[in-house]
Amino acid sequence: MPANAITGAVLRRSLRTYQVYGANTGVGKTVMSTILCGALHRAFPKELVWYLKPVSTGPRDEADDGHLARFSPQTISKTLVQYGEPVSPHIAARAAPVSDPSLREQIQKHVTQVAEEGQGTLLIETAGGVHSPTPSGSSQADLYRPLRLPVLLVGDHRLGGISASISAFESLHIRGYDLNTVLVFEDAQYENHLYLRDYFAERDIPLLSLPPPPPPASTPASDRERMAEYYKEMSALPAVLDTVRSFATTHESRLARLDDMAPQAHKHIWYPFTQHSGMTRASIMTIDSAYGDFFQTYSSSENTLQPTLDGSGSWWTQGLGHANPNLALAAAYAAGRYGHVMFAGAIHEPALSLAELLLKHLGNPRLQRVFYSDNGSTGIEVGVKMALTAAAERYNYQNRDIGVVGLKGSYHGDTIGAMDCSEPSTYNERVHWYEGRGHWFGFPEVKMKDGTWVVEPPAGQEHEFGPTQMFASLDEVFDVEARDNSAAAEVYRKHIWSTLDRLINVEGKIFGALILEPIMLGAGGMLLVDPLFQRTLITTIRDSHALFTSTPSPTEDGCTWTGLPVVFDEVFTGLTRLGPFSLSPLLGVQPDISVHAKLLTGGLLPLAATVASEAIYNVFLGSEKSDALLHGHSYTAHAVGCKVAETSVKELLKLESSGAWDDFKQPWKGANKGEGKVWSMWSPTFLSNVSNHADVESVVALGLVLAIKLRDENPGYSSNAAIGLQFSLSSVHDGFKIHSRVLGNVFYIMASQTTEVDVVRRVEKKLLGALVNRQ
Amino acid sequence: MPANAITGAVLRRSLRTYQVYGANTGVGKTVMSTILCGALHRAFPKELVWYLKPVSTGPRDEADDGHLARFSPQTISKTLVQYGEPVSPHIAARAAPVSDPSLREQIQKHVTQVAEEGQGTLLIETAGGVHSPTPSGSSQADLYRPLRLPVLLVGDHRLGGISASISAFESLHIRGYDLNTVLVFEDAQYENHLYLRDYFAERDIPLLSLPPPPPPASTPASDRERMAEYYKEMSALPAVLDTVRSFATTHESRLARLDDMAPQAHKHIWYPFTQHSGMTRASIMTIDSAYGDFFQTYSSSENTLQPTLDGSGSWWTQGLGHANPNLALAAAYAAGRYGHVMFAGAIHEPALSLAELLLKHLGNPRLQRVFYSDNGSTGIEVGVKMALTAAAERYNYQNRDIGVVGLKGSYHGDTIGAMDCSEPSTYNERVHWYEGRGHWFGFPEVKMKDGTWVVEPPAGQEHEFGPTQMFASLDEVFDVEARDNSAAAEVYRKHIWSTLDRLINVEGKIFGALILEPIMLGAGGMLLVDPLFQRTLITTIRDSHALFTSTPSPTEDGCTWTGLPVVFDEVFTGLTRLGPFSLSPLLGVQPDISVHAKLLTGGLLPLAATVASEAIYNVFLGSEKSDALLHGHSYTAHAVGCKVAETSVKELLKLESSGAWDDFKQPWKGANKGEGKVWSMWSPTFLSNVSNHADVESVVALGLVLAIKLRDENPGYSSNAAIGLQFSLSSVHDGFKIHSRVLGNVFYIMASQTTEVDVVRRVEKKLLGALVNRQ
Repeated sequence: MPANAITGAVLRRSLRTYQVYGANTGVGKTVMSTILCGALHRAFPKELVWYLKPVSTGPRDEADDGHLARFSPQTISKTLVQYGEPVSPHIAARAAPVSDPSLREQIQKHVTQVAEEGQGTLLIETAGGVHSPTPSGSSQADLYRPLRLPVLLVGDHRLGGISASISAFESLHIRGYDLNTVLVFEDAQYENHLYLRDYFAERDIPLLSLPPPPPPASTPASDRERMAEYYKEMSALPAVLDTVRSFATTHESRLARLDDMAPQAHKHIWYPFTQHSGMTRASIMTIDSAYGDFFQTYSSSENTLQPTLDGSGSWWTQGLGHANPNLALAAAYAAGRYGHVMFAGAIHEPALSLAELLLKHLGNPRLQRVFYSDNGSTGIEVGVKMALTAAAERYNYQNRDIGVVGLKGSYHGDTIGAMDCSEPSTYNERVHWYEGRGHWFGFPEVKMKDGTWVVEPPAGQEHEFGPTQMFASLDEVFDVEARDNSAAAEVYRKHIWSTLDRLINVEGKIFGALILEPIMLGAGGMLLVDPLFQRTLITTIRDSHALFTSTPSPTEDGCTWTGLPVVFDEVFTGLTRLGPFSLSPLLGVQPDISVHAKLLTGGLLPLAATVASEAIYNVFLGSEKSDALLHGHSYTAHAVGCKVAETSVKELLKLESSGAWDDFKQPWKGANKGEGKVWSMWSPTFLSNVSNHADVESVVALGLVLAIKLRDENPGYSSNAAIGLQFSLSSVHDGFKIHSRVLGNVFYIMASQTTEVDVVRRVEKKLLGALVNRQ
Repeated sequence: MPANAITGAVLRRSLRTYQVYGANTGVGKTVMSTILCGALHRAFPKELVWYLKPVSTGPRDEADDGHLARFSPQTISKTLVQYGEPVSPHIAARAAPVSDPSLREQIQKHVTQVAEEGQGTLLIETAGGVHSPTPSGSSQADLYRPLRLPVLLVGDHRLGGISASISAFESLHIRGYDLNTVLVFEDAQYENHLYLRDYFAERDIPLLSLPPPPPPASTPASDRERMAEYYKEMSALPAVLDTVRSFATTHESRLARLDDMAPQAHKHIWYPFTQHSGMTRASIMTIDSAYGDFFQTYSSSENTLQPTLDGSGSWWTQGLGHANPNLALAAAYAAGRYGHVMFAGAIHEPALSLAELLLKHLGNPRLQRVFYSDNGSTGIEVGVKMALTAAAERYNYQNRDIGVVGLKGSYHGDTIGAMDCSEPSTYNERVHWYEGRGHWFGFPEVKMKDGTWVVEPPAGQEHEFGPTQMFASLDEVFDVEARDNSAAAEVYRKHIWSTLDRLINVEGKIFGALILEPIMLGAGGMLLVDPLFQRTLITTIRDSHALFTSTPSPTEDGCTWTGLPVVFDEVFTGLTRLGPFSLSPLLGVQPDISVHAKLLTGGLLPLAATVASEAIYNVFLGSEKSDALLHGHSYTAHAVGCKVAETSVKELLKLESSGAWDDFKQPWKGANKGEGKVWSMWSPTFLSNVSNHADVESVVALGLVLAIKLRDENPGYSSNAAIGLQFSLSSVHDGFKIHSRVLGNVFYIMASQTTEVDVVRRVEKKLLGALVNRQ
């Protein structure tokens, strides 16, 4: 599990910092460090050299920093945590535990402090091998990963050491570490250094091999003398001096590259959804790495990396944290077992397991078939092709110009077919082949205004949607079964029926699908739709036999569609984004087709699943190949994506069932008077405070999502109202920046499923502060 | 590098086979194996137990199989290769080398032989740690990977052993191995077994810990006695007996799942491009794993896995072999460093490096900008949106119904916008929102007929395209500069000009792009287009100022587009698929936009790059956000895809420059009289032989692709002519099956960039044999 505490990666121009890892225990990390420290003093006589041992076990006088102090007295050495027992830190720490975030924080402080003392090099030596336990029981490689320091790996020169060295390298590599140099002692019999030199040369990683230290002498005094002699000799070797000099070169070229990345991107990258005019090099964010909820972004002016909250969940994809090692391992496993294997007429375990998992946990008896594609947009195109064909066959449509029924402000993706499912808007007005095909209903919105949850009709449309409704809690809004009998439901039903009746029977339009983003419209501005309206829209269409007639009528077995096939675009909303795994229970109705992407892979790579009912599937059975759904992508059901998705879905389900979000749910249970059907990571108190702010029109929060609608005379996609808030959060405060995306006058923030309570509360505080400072 | 030699994965119902790996040297693999063998005899008294040590070093009398024979005399033990020196196999083997394929073949033979002797269990013990060198210098884990046996991992109980055990597990895991059980000795001081038990329990892998063997006794005789006592005791422990009994359970459930996968897939998977009617469970291929060019497919009737050539390159994606460890590591590295980080206004190293690499090696001065998307289809939609907007702006088109110019039989993907770029066909006729938007030219095809390369006009259209042209070699066909002055070129020019003139000036059509699959049309039936025709189409459109007029005229600086923006769909054809990295040199003209996908990631996962000229990019600069290209996918430029692509592109370029394909090129140089501009992995002699077969209408081969057009009275997508050939190759012969896809009456096979000469020649032999047997 990646820790989400706020730790920055370490980078300073004046301070070259390295993490010394060992391929195993006893491979000579401290000896190598001592040699390097000696050589650093020789090569850079005007600079300082620091050595840090974060955790040390065993008697104080045998500690590694003592060894350094003895044999490289000019080096400023330090240990952060010392355990007396000569056992693994996780055993030694039983009496005096120390957490991973605390250790990282102490290291960060140390780095900050020494960086102020002058120019130089700092070596941070780990304990044992790369996966040796830390005091908390995590592994070295996982503990230090958020710092993501360049690595000096001390290889194993002993029998079996080739294997240990390569496996250690792989464990570091798959965690996104960069190796600077491999150091290894020479052994004439095993020749590990020769084999490893070739191995690492192929990977552009230099290897420095050195004669091993002399064997222990007969007395401690002569032993010390021999070691001093050895160190003197080693640290003066040209190869060693070259190595430490190369540290300066690689450090400078890393910084030079970081400085150059934004300019090069400015020159060669064509960004998605971006007006490049007015974009400057400085406005491009250079992401050096990421971990948990945070990017590590490069500040060119300060030559440092800063933790920057990924406030848009990287365009709504993130769930299990950036650089999650379990997802990285899952990806590599599938790559190592299959690569990609073609899927037409074939089956492999990750694709089947994922299909079975989805069908089981979506819990929708209608859904029986999984069709894989590459992203939300293609998943929608597949879903729409399925639905239109089913409707065309049922109703014997001859006209190819079949429309969809949807909601205003909906968004389903950027390929032409997905665009056609949305009403005309800024997104598509300049796309020549776009043709909005359908009818889009306006809808009442759920909002918190001045501390109260309301359901508000579109401006000036009370006659169609009824007056604003007030609710004691968000739970009450979502109690759709009870609300079925309300006056509002009746108003909704009439409005829906009369609109469709006009479109079909007066205007002669034909429809092939009802397509909805359940509960929340994302790109439309994080709009929370009155669930009763969506529910009523679905049930009205399903029950309107007078509008949608066919002969013979389908058998209503609870799985056959009636009216129109209902497609749920759960690409953004589903898979616990808004709380529950599937959104159907919140609406109390099930779709005939649902589309899943984004969070499906936990936030690692693209994959989509379009899940359909058997009734829809059966429409494509026929004697001709051309009767089939002739859609496919080369990488359909790619094993890497399916395995990562399987791993992610299991992890999401585990988080859901294990009570991982109880601390977030608690205040909502209070606010909702004990129910807690719906909840958010953002607290009700915070929401109430925000909603009472003079600049705030309304606020919504559900699951991971928080959206603040700012007052603006010209709201919408081209509004600049939220830019100020976005900007004021983009500088460092409380140790981190916030990167956010805005949708016109809507400012939103998205947590991930693994964001810690502390982080969410700190973000709330920053947000409130930024709002107050606007005044 | 994955070896492409034909090795099957090992699976037999009657024979439970395990690979015993060690977390390090000296962790007790042989002792653990001996204990297990003893327990197996106890637990399954009627079964046989075999022990195999493929490679052993050191004196014969100390060898591991000797230890087995001594302490578990009922076990049938064997060593395949014995080196006398007690050093690593790669050093010992210097005098007597043995290759990886040869070792795997010997193991396969051994498995086949013992499987005939009766029911039982076979343990195959590796040497050293998971990455210890083999005689060839490869690593244990890589050598044995093609066999993909379930693993018994002996953990390291010593100081540092937690790290060694976890890293060893990770090295195996990222190669797609499945761990059956971890075995480890108990050490009261280090407690590795306790830590590791929890660690592996989280990963659902059982761990068996056992007391370590007794320390050596004073004499060899008493030593032997104590060990015998130890083995007797250990192999009777209930936990040990439970473990070996669990072998039977997990083996049976693996087989049961393999048997069930096709039925479950038949029930729940909706396949791409597949008419499910008539599809049976038996027709679904269960892929257990893949390696190099081969799937390992499960035969339900025989309960075995069989190597099956991936004859369609998994739908034209494969380049660097399935389960390539370098690509798996690249994927994991990016996942571990970034996960996915959002790309709008941000930059990360893999995305930038890949953009720089592509721009450099496409070698097209027009191309300056890289736009990332998720697959070929989305990449095409992006390219078309770019082109249409550029043309509409230049020519001030008011009508949104802008068409493309293309070729008949072209295919650009399955999203609606990509479909619209192709003429009406079987693929799209039932898609309601499809509207073929454009004009598609027929074209002369390059074919080998009866041993001669010809360029043939579409049937009955000699008046438009000229008569059939005969060529001495394929190189001559591709000498387009020389052919520019031919009569054919003049005929082509006139036909193109008069057609466009009619469409634009008589029919009033407007066009916004010329979109082409350069050189070869894939889904259209692997049609080799006369390069002179494509070249002439491009130059004619670019030079037809009378047809495409604008005020002011663009400056012709060699980078500004004229006529129409030219879009190359290189999704299938590019990146060395047909030989060269970019296809422009074969046509002698450069596109304004090119689209790359499939092979871009070496065949691992989806990613696309649409590369455009600065002139096209500039069209989208403006004061409004809506002037921008408002297209994007959540996972745009996902780090995993970009890093894998960067790794793949570098590898492809290295293969191209290092002469890796010289053995394939050689016979083509001969056939082409010394030139060798174009070549194929499929030999000219083989082509000639195939083309002379009575059932063969014609044959083409270029780069990796071979396509045989069979005679059929009703050719096209719905022809069944190639099914017979496909079927006859699908049974085991010469040690492997061939899985192929057909396109109507066209049978094609695609190698990958790393397919070995031997494999290609064996496939040629099988193919000729199958053709001859048809008669």
